[in-house]
Amino acid sequence: MEVNSVLETVFKLIEEKKYALVREELLEYNEADIAEIIEEVNDTLGPEKSVILFRMLPKDISAMVFSYVSSDCQIDIVSGITVRELQNIMEEMSFDDMIDAMEELPANVVDRVLNRTDKETRKLINQFLNYPESSAGSLMTIDYIGLKKEMRVREALQYIKIHGMDRETVYTCYVMDSERHLQGIISLKTLVVSEGYEVIGELMHEDFISVNVMDDQEEVAQTFKKYDFLALPVVDKENRLVGIITFDDIMDVIEEEVTEDIERMAGVLDGSDKEYLDISVMSHVKNRMPWLCLLTLSLMITGGIISHFEDLMSQVISLVAYMPLLMGTGGNTGTQACTLIIRGMSVGEIELKDAIKVMWKELRVSFCVGLVLSMVNMVKIMVIDQEPFLIALTVSIAVLIVVMFAKMLGGLLPMLAKRLRIDPALMATPMISSITDMVSVIIYFLLATAILGL
Amino acid sequence: MEVNSVLETVFKLIEEKKYALVREELLEYNEADIAEIIEEVNDTLGPEKSVILFRMLPKDISAMVFSYVSSDCQIDIVSGITVRELQNIMEEMSFDDMIDAMEELPANVVDRVLNRTDKETRKLINQFLNYPESSAGSLMTIDYIGLKKEMRVREALQYIKIHGMDRETVYTCYVMDSERHLQGIISLKTLVVSEGYEVIGELMHEDFISVNVMDDQEEVAQTFKKYDFLALPVVDKENRLVGIITFDDIMDVIEEEVTEDIERMAGVLDGSDKEYLDISVMSHVKNRMPWLCLLTLSLMITGGIISHFEDLMSQVISLVAYMPLLMGTGGNTGTQACTLIIRGMSVGEIELKDAIKVMWKELRVSFCVGLVLSMVNMVKIMVIDQEPFLIALTVSIAVLIVVMFAKMLGGLLPMLAKRLRIDPALMATPMISSITDMVSVIIYFLLATAILGL
Repeated sequence: MEVNSVLETVFKLIEEKKYALVREELLEYNEADIAEIIEEVNDTLGPEKSVILFRMLPKDISAMVFSYVSSDCQIDIVSGITVRELQNIMEEMSFDDMIDAMEELPANVVDRVLNRTDKETRKLINQFLNYPESSAGSLMTIDYIGLKKEMRVREALQYIKIHGMDRETVYTCYVMDSERHLQGIISLKTLVVSEGYEVIGELMHEDFISVNVMDDQEEVAQTFKKYDFLALPVVDKENRLVGIITFDDIMDVIEEEVTEDIERMAGVLDGSDKEYLDISVMSHVKNRMPWLCLLTLSLMITGGIISHFEDLMSQVISLVAYMPLLMGTGGNTGTQACTLIIRGMSVGEIELKDAIKVMWKELRVSFCVGLVLSMVNMVKIMVIDQEPFLIALTVSIAVLIVVMFAKMLGGLLPMLAKRLRIDPALMATPMISSITDMVSVIIYFLLATAILGL
Repeated sequence: MEVNSVLETVFKLIEEKKYALVREELLEYNEADIAEIIEEVNDTLGPEKSVILFRMLPKDISAMVFSYVSSDCQIDIVSGITVRELQNIMEEMSFDDMIDAMEELPANVVDRVLNRTDKETRKLINQFLNYPESSAGSLMTIDYIGLKKEMRVREALQYIKIHGMDRETVYTCYVMDSERHLQGIISLKTLVVSEGYEVIGELMHEDFISVNVMDDQEEVAQTFKKYDFLALPVVDKENRLVGIITFDDIMDVIEEEVTEDIERMAGVLDGSDKEYLDISVMSHVKNRMPWLCLLTLSLMITGGIISHFEDLMSQVISLVAYMPLLMGTGGNTGTQACTLIIRGMSVGEIELKDAIKVMWKELRVSFCVGLVLSMVNMVKIMVIDQEPFLIALTVSIAVLIVVMFAKMLGGLLPMLAKRLRIDPALMATPMISSITDMVSVIIYFLLATAILGL
């Protein structure tokens, strides 16, 4: 959908207060699109307008739209509607989307909604709100189809016909005993292609894969990627089914995890899921300062090392001009290696047991890369800069050593971090280039002292 | 599944040539797990062993396993089985997995398989093999359920019962007219919860979302993420249904695209989908050299700029010690900004029209960050290094300017790249730090000349 052209129309109609026409326009679109439009209205024209639009939507659509808009926009909408309206929306929403919304809403609003729900549901909601933020429990929904082993296909299809409409997925059904122990799974596909008299217990898969309610969401995402499932059952310690996770929630998890990885690799520590433009200036500063301070400290140490060699530099001032080359080359080559390893580990291509293989590969790659770069520099320094051979030799040898060191370090550090249960993404560019900076000036000046005989 | 413990058992049984037991062991697991085991056997014990295992699997399972193993392993297996066996496997595989396999297999093998298939299928396969590599066409499958508007629910379910088993998905069905123009979609859920006498044309959704066969896979992935679909219909220019794309193939696309982004951000240009350990040393060198050469050139220019200020440095040699600090700080702060913007654009949070907002945000963030860092440096240089005030002042002012410049550049460059239809990921760390390196030495030495009056 081309949202921008629709937005123009909608803005114009709102300005002219032709709300009935806006409603008609909105209802032409998919709920995800309506959510996008309402968010834009909220950001541009303010919550008064977006709440008006939201309240005009039919109940079932407004619940879907509510689950699609950002949490900031949810809060804006909630402050403009009555508790009764909010409760109606919550009842229409799928269970996991409702829990997600409740986690973001102000506590007093959540309390008021909870007060109006029956005791049983309230207990359940509270239980779900208590699962750790990135656990399987926090992702799951209770809107699944549960069947019994003894049922016939005909009965199962009849059961789905009655209960299916308000379940998040009916495509995988879960077979349990009377204590809710998960015994098997059966797909709607199997049910539909089987004969009515066949018995569920004989058709179901018993070698299903399940996750534990406390498993980390990253593990759950890996399982989804490996097996291509539509949904995964979530069980507790006693193997009782407590919920299911559907693939659409996992797509969001994968995106979140990747974003977190990429940001950490750049030295940004952002704990929230907020969008860049929604994060305040001060939060941006707070997300970026910790690493910058650490990096500044390391750069100060590098500076200290350099000032140790001031005598050397005063004698051969042209050495200074090649310092950034060495530090930069170390950073760039190290970045390549560590990025490949970090990504390889996070998609499961590289494991800790591959450490030797990785080192052996990086050793050979870095030797080739280092040799080429060092020759290029040798020629350039002698021919273009017209510096003496010994200076060119110093720089070239230093380049080779620095490249090899940087690539080995780039390969090793993320694996070491993983071994120590630190996020490997923290060992990326900023960290690697800080270390190679220090090491490369030391190597460079020691080499210079030796080769130039100073 | 804990693959490692299973592997030990399997390796031991193979060594003892107890293949019947290996087969029994393997069949305990999901096809994705069997594929993982066979791949490990292939890598560790060689293709002779893995082919033996593979040939022992039942036909339907071997087809699934074949679609799960890496393309290197597929090639090894193919070289150990007969063309007839390969053809049997191909016939069992889902259409899109078969096309994927064919794209990777040697041309002569593909020809031999094609020679044995009937003319109609051959034509279809050739058509699919010709879709551009990252287009929607290359991802789709033809194994879908097509229905007619006039059908009743009862008839549709009967049709699915007969044809469903060999279709990739039956959960979304596609309603077409006699010229295959897509008229609507209907989910199996709707069919199952509706009454047998209801008519498809009245139940189907007519406001469905579809993609064009030539659309880029990245766009398709965005559409999936936005609407949470299980499958998307793919149509040609005349709106005729040519295939469908299912969510499992999209998960792979998302992972591929993210890996490509991350690698490009680190200056690695890898055209293949191969795993790190499977890429040869020479290919690793080839993937990394282009950017390194470009970056070395830029570092040489920076060196050239520095040597212009040799006189200044000889007079105040302590200035040299703060050079890495400035360059490093520029690189680190720029990296943070450009990474946030690149990621924000690739998940659709930031668009080109937000350029002004981004600049305004980075301006304020960089001023705060720069001010803190510049004060820290001022204090450190005066108190710890005991350098004169004017040197401390030079460095502090330079830090502030460099940080602001780096963050603005980091925010702007990726957006500019996108505007010029260059991949923004190429504007990441290596590029940003090269530019800030040059700019920061110029700012630093010009400031020093002015402030120190040299």
